[in-house]
Amino acid sequence: MYHHVKRLMYTVNVGEPDVRFGQMLLEQFGGANGELAAAMQYSVQGLNCDDPKRKDMLMDIGTEELSHLEVIGSLARMHLKPLKQGQCSKAEADPLIAVVGGGGVSLFNSQGNPWTADYLKVSGQLEVDLRSNIAAEARAKITYERLIDFTDDPGTKEALTFLMTREITHMKAFQAALETMGKGPFEIGELPPDEEYVNKYYNDSTGEGELGEDATGPWNQGGDWELVDSPAFATLASKQ
Amino acid sequence: MYHHVKRLMYTVNVGEPDVRFGQMLLEQFGGANGELAAAMQYSVQGLNCDDPKRKDMLMDIGTEELSHLEVIGSLARMHLKPLKQGQCSKAEADPLIAVVGGGGVSLFNSQGNPWTADYLKVSGQLEVDLRSNIAAEARAKITYERLIDFTDDPGTKEALTFLMTREITHMKAFQAALETMGKGPFEIGELPPDEEYVNKYYNDSTGEGELGEDATGPWNQGGDWELVDSPAFATLASKQ
Amino acid sequence: MYHHVKRLMYTVNVGEPDVRFGQMLLEQFGGANGELAAAMQYSVQGLNCDDPKRKDMLMDIGTEELSHLEVIGSLARMHLKPLKQGQCSKAEADPLIAVVGGGGVSLFNSQGNPWTADYLKVSGQLEVDLRSNIAAEARAKITYERLIDFTDDPGTKEALTFLMTREITHMKAFQAALETMGKGPFEIGELPPDEEYVNKYYNDSTGEGELGEDATGPWNQGGDWELVDSPAFATLASKQ
Amino acid sequence: MYHHVKRLMYTVNVGEPDVRFGQMLLEQFGGANGELAAAMQYSVQGLNCDDPKRKDMLMDIGTEELSHLEVIGSLARMHLKPLKQGQCSKAEADPLIAVVGGGGVSLFNSQGNPWTADYLKVSGQLEVDLRSNIAAEARAKITYERLIDFTDDPGTKEALTFLMTREITHMKAFQAALETMGKGPFEIGELPPDEEYVNKYYNDSTGEGELGEDATGPWNQGGDWELVDSPAFATLASKQ
Amino acid sequence: MYHHVKRLMYTVNVGEPDVRFGQMLLEQFGGANGELAAAMQYSVQGLNCDDPKRKDMLMDIGTEELSHLEVIGSLARMHLKPLKQGQCSKAEADPLIAVVGGGGVSLFNSQGNPWTADYLKVSGQLEVDLRSNIAAEARAKITYERLIDFTDDPGTKEALTFLMTREITHMKAFQAALETMGKGPFEIGELPPDEEYVNKYYNDSTGEGELGEDATGPWNQGGDWELVDSPAFATLASKQ
Amino acid sequence: MYHHVKRLMYTVNVGEPDVRFGQMLLEQFGGANGELAAAMQYSVQGLNCDDPKRKDMLMDIGTEELSHLEVIGSLARMHLKPLKQGQCSKAEADPLIAVVGGGGVSLFNSQGNPWTADYLKVSGQLEVDLRSNIAAEARAKITYERLIDFTDDPGTKEALTFLMTREITHMKAFQAALETMGKGPFEIGELPPDEEYVNKYYNDSTGEGELGEDATGPWNQGGDWELVDSPAFATLASKQ
Repeated sequence: MYHHVKRLMYTVNVGEPDVRFGQMLLEQFGGANGELAAAMQYSVQGLNCDDPKRKDMLMDIGTEELSHLEVIGSLARMHLKPLKQGQCSKAEADPLIAVVGGGGVSLFNSQGNPWTADYLKVSGQLEVDLRSNIAAEARAKITYERLIDFTDDPGTKEALTFLMTREITHMKAFQAALETMGKGPFEIGELPPDEEYVNKYYNDSTGEGELGEDATGPWNQGGDWELVDSPAFATLASKQ
Repeated sequence: MYHHVKRLMYTVNVGEPDVRFGQMLLEQFGGANGELAAAMQYSVQGLNCDDPKRKDMLMDIGTEELSHLEVIGSLARMHLKPLKQGQCSKAEADPLIAVVGGGGVSLFNSQGNPWTADYLKVSGQLEVDLRSNIAAEARAKITYERLIDFTDDPGTKEALTFLMTREITHMKAFQAALETMGKGPFEIGELPPDEEYVNKYYNDSTGEGELGEDATGPWNQGGDWELVDSPAFATLASKQ
Repeated sequence: MYHHVKRLMYTVNVGEPDVRFGQMLLEQFGGANGELAAAMQYSVQGLNCDDPKRKDMLMDIGTEELSHLEVIGSLARMHLKPLKQGQCSKAEADPLIAVVGGGGVSLFNSQGNPWTADYLKVSGQLEVDLRSNIAAEARAKITYERLIDFTDDPGTKEALTFLMTREITHMKAFQAALETMGKGPFEIGELPPDEEYVNKYYNDSTGEGELGEDATGPWNQGGDWELVDSPAFATLASKQ
Repeated sequence: MYHHVKRLMYTVNVGEPDVRFGQMLLEQFGGANGELAAAMQYSVQGLNCDDPKRKDMLMDIGTEELSHLEVIGSLARMHLKPLKQGQCSKAEADPLIAVVGGGGVSLFNSQGNPWTADYLKVSGQLEVDLRSNIAAEARAKITYERLIDFTDDPGTKEALTFLMTREITHMKAFQAALETMGKGPFEIGELPPDEEYVNKYYNDSTGEGELGEDATGPWNQGGDWELVDSPAFATLASKQ
Repeated sequence: MYHHVKRLMYTVNVGEPDVRFGQMLLEQFGGANGELAAAMQYSVQGLNCDDPKRKDMLMDIGTEELSHLEVIGSLARMHLKPLKQGQCSKAEADPLIAVVGGGGVSLFNSQGNPWTADYLKVSGQLEVDLRSNIAAEARAKITYERLIDFTDDPGTKEALTFLMTREITHMKAFQAALETMGKGPFEIGELPPDEEYVNKYYNDSTGEGELGEDATGPWNQGGDWELVDSPAFATLASKQ
Repeated sequence: MYHHVKRLMYTVNVGEPDVRFGQMLLEQFGGANGELAAAMQYSVQGLNCDDPKRKDMLMDIGTEELSHLEVIGSLARMHLKPLKQGQCSKAEADPLIAVVGGGGVSLFNSQGNPWTADYLKVSGQLEVDLRSNIAAEARAKITYERLIDFTDDPGTKEALTFLMTREITHMKAFQAALETMGKGPFEIGELPPDEEYVNKYYNDSTGEGELGEDATGPWNQGGDWELVDSPAFATLASKQ
């Protein structure tokens, strides 16, 4: 059961509204890596989770993201206010916001694409979902960082820094929850990989040119790695 | 530049076609965690990547996923063959496959939803993209594991085990590439989190009931964690 | 700011799980007229609303719908439980739920379509939004009614009846809020309609046949109505 | 069966083409509250309708909306004409219109989102569909009103006023059709609401702050209303 | 301006309703190659067309497709009638049709995907649009042919044969309109292709295996064709 | 099996980056008529194709389109480079590219719409698929032509001319493959059209006005054509 309190989780002060920046902010309201996506991903994972302790964590963080949705929505609304009817020129007016939405926020991204559950990653397997969440938090962090780069308004910067910080907090929590599950770093589900193929690295992009050059690194040499060169060409040669 | 060789990366043998299972397999052809999603996510990240060595890795693995797309498509097609015109009853016929597609495969998932680039996670920030890829491989691995559970056909099981194994291989490669970037485990981008808020864990879901009970764990206690109880209620109380 | 309490708003008891019915229930979880749509429509309208009293109402009801989302999600999950890995036959298994989601719920409708913000109607004009909400509640009510028709499980019927009832409650609240705004029944926004055209009813579908017959009623005769016959034909005739 | 006459329902005169305004107009051509949505919603409802008289009304109005689609499309095309190949600068050119569409209109909204049937509300229950239609007309009316605010061209204003006026006409017709169905204002379908819960108003958003304050009104007090305060908190308290 | 006459363009008689077949028919109501797609593609092309004679043809055929939409919708509705409330078992009930739509048709395809304008091909270049239309008619023709294969009901077969026939009629009309435009068979727009590259056929898929073998034909040899073997390999070799 | 070579199929040189033009180029990267659409349409058709020779052709061309995708993606990336973090002003920044994608390309069109498999036409019937491909090539050709009109950069013009030219090459190949199948120009599938209806042209749009005038041409007169005037009106008249 949910309850709402009529205060923002983080107080937002905006100096001069900036319509263009408000539109950018919609990415974190109704966009692919935004707060609704986070809230829904963790809350739905939590609803499905059979591990009672990590279920509680998913609900804690999922609920916090709803409060973030409200903060970013309020911030965007302050910046978009000049789009209210009769207060902006045609050149400024984003038609979806000004004409359809009457100058308010809606669950669209910065380009007017409607939010879709295709943004969510819900697998019902805890060690998988936690990895999806770590990645989601990393994406949200970099998005906030880039947004901060595009504003000079101190109050806006502060609020975005708070939200950005919380992504790191959640990343740490998801990482700790994953590491204490008692599973190996590449142990997903129950079925083991086939030993014949698991350590082969196929060098499927070769040569050098405008698109770079062939390289080796700890992801294809050392340890158990076996580097296999150009399997498609090898196949072709073996048939001739 | 791409070249195609007219052989599958892994030879596929199917005993008795199983239309229902063929439809399930479409998840890995045109679904959210499927091979086209993997191929496109890594190849587009590779195109954008400025780190020449990891760019090569992204192109190697992205190209391999194209070959996987062909394997899973061929496997699905073998299972769906009875849906070709005039060879199946109305009860068996999936209309999208049998009527629209003439019994062949298309870039839909198991429910007929068209593949969409909303499935992809491409941030242009390498330490973020690698985390998105690790999570993507984990999701693909569990999906193959579940598919294997639904078939008894030995040839099908073998092909799916090969594909499942390769997801673990890629996960290992992405993890090694991430760990050798020289960034801390929670270091994303350039801006540091705000120290005042980064270690606070907000207990936003409380009480006990059908939906579980409050819990603590390494994700909210120990180390630097500061557990903050029920901030919404606290706010409400402080105003009264 | 939001808080979550670990109890359902309405206690749900399910006798025998019914996978087919669980799939139907997803309409009210992630479908066009479902609880997420209601929660988001009213909460986003509330965020944008400048009338403080009706804003409060929108937030009250929007928050309640989040609790409904949790009830319907829990109910669907109970019915879908047999789809957890290894517990169902291929014939029973909905691939999106069993294979991709591991037997849990996700924000899809009964056919696996992802929830989209295109379901929402948010205009930023209060007398318009309230009408959209009245219609939304009417749709949700009839959907619950039809769902109740498809189950014999007493606990399920009870929970659905509770949720169905609440839609009527909200409909009454929205209607009262609309009627006390001090606007006429056809007064939308500021601009008056053009008196020359507003009372003309164009009879654009004529004749009789498999598709019915021409009719009159209080929607085109009596009062101020002026019935205009077949304007397209008239235009054509006038040119010949 | 349909027939088309090569004249517009309302003659459109445009002074100076205004590309930016033409793009805005696409909201009413291929957008969520636009004329195709209206035409399809009413015509499909009409096809399904078993009440012969109201079926005729749905077909009359659905057909008129097709004629409106043609008017708004013609108007948008006049304003977008400078986007025809070789006639506009890169700065002016909307790529989807100028490059993909060759300067013509397509069934997109102002942001290039493709029209989708997710915009439609078709329930197959007449008293529900009529409410959806009343709300749809209200949304279309306010959209036209806002569009009128963004143009100074007299011919454009006239045409938009005509279209705006007709939305009110249709709203009146749908309202009359609803009121004469012989159903109570909150009577939807067949199943009655549960008397125990129907008159309870849950105060689920409380406190005061940046997001407003608690309020009462005819939507939660007076008449049969029973105001229930903060059920989530109450639940929590009762368990401690 | 449009007018609707209350008779179907082709009288439809259905013996025994067949719910499963009705669902299949939705492909031609709200599916990718269905009648709404045809009606909208031709009518919107017509609206944009500057060639007065071919514009008339596009409007004639676009209008006829609206009448087809009505025929296929009526036919689907007859087959789906048992899905009306209280008349079908849970096993038969398609939730989207039975629960959400009350047993009527909506603008979805056979899998419940909403119709989208992404199905349309409108380029604003007449010699391009006509080719898109020829292809669209060919797809619609084969879809009807496959549908006819899945029914034994004589009245249904007759109606579908009528609709299938008309696709050939339109294909002939579009072909005649294209051939009399005075453009060469490969003349599109204004810019000529680069003579250096236009006759080179790149053999980019080579070898032989499960996926076939290398082949030549009139599409890569004879006439002006120059067959270029394996350019990617050649590039690689040239750099070593 | 696929192999990637680290060189572009056509070397791309860009003088001054042009962000606005880079955004336009995304149409051919992730847009409806772009290179991914071409690559996937032909490759998936090829996977399904039972005619070994034309299957080879579909794979040859499908693979070439993957190389085109890489060329256009590289070209777009060069033009979009100023959108990398910290290098562009807010006015220039497309939020989806600059904020979400970090200045790189993604599989979106010029308006930020995600690529969708709804763009593809895959029927599993060779004479139909080839027509869909001819039309697809024609659309891609005109799109490149219009893009060329919007740039003055010589290197960009050259690369686009190469890509445009190849569309004509493919159009010729598909046309030759179609013409040598041994089927008549209007022979699709197996079922013949109904002779009673196939040569009737219905004049469903009549009169003259802003929308043009009635016309005849080789698409409705001469040969076998029988011109039928205004069938809807005729029906109406016959009933009165």
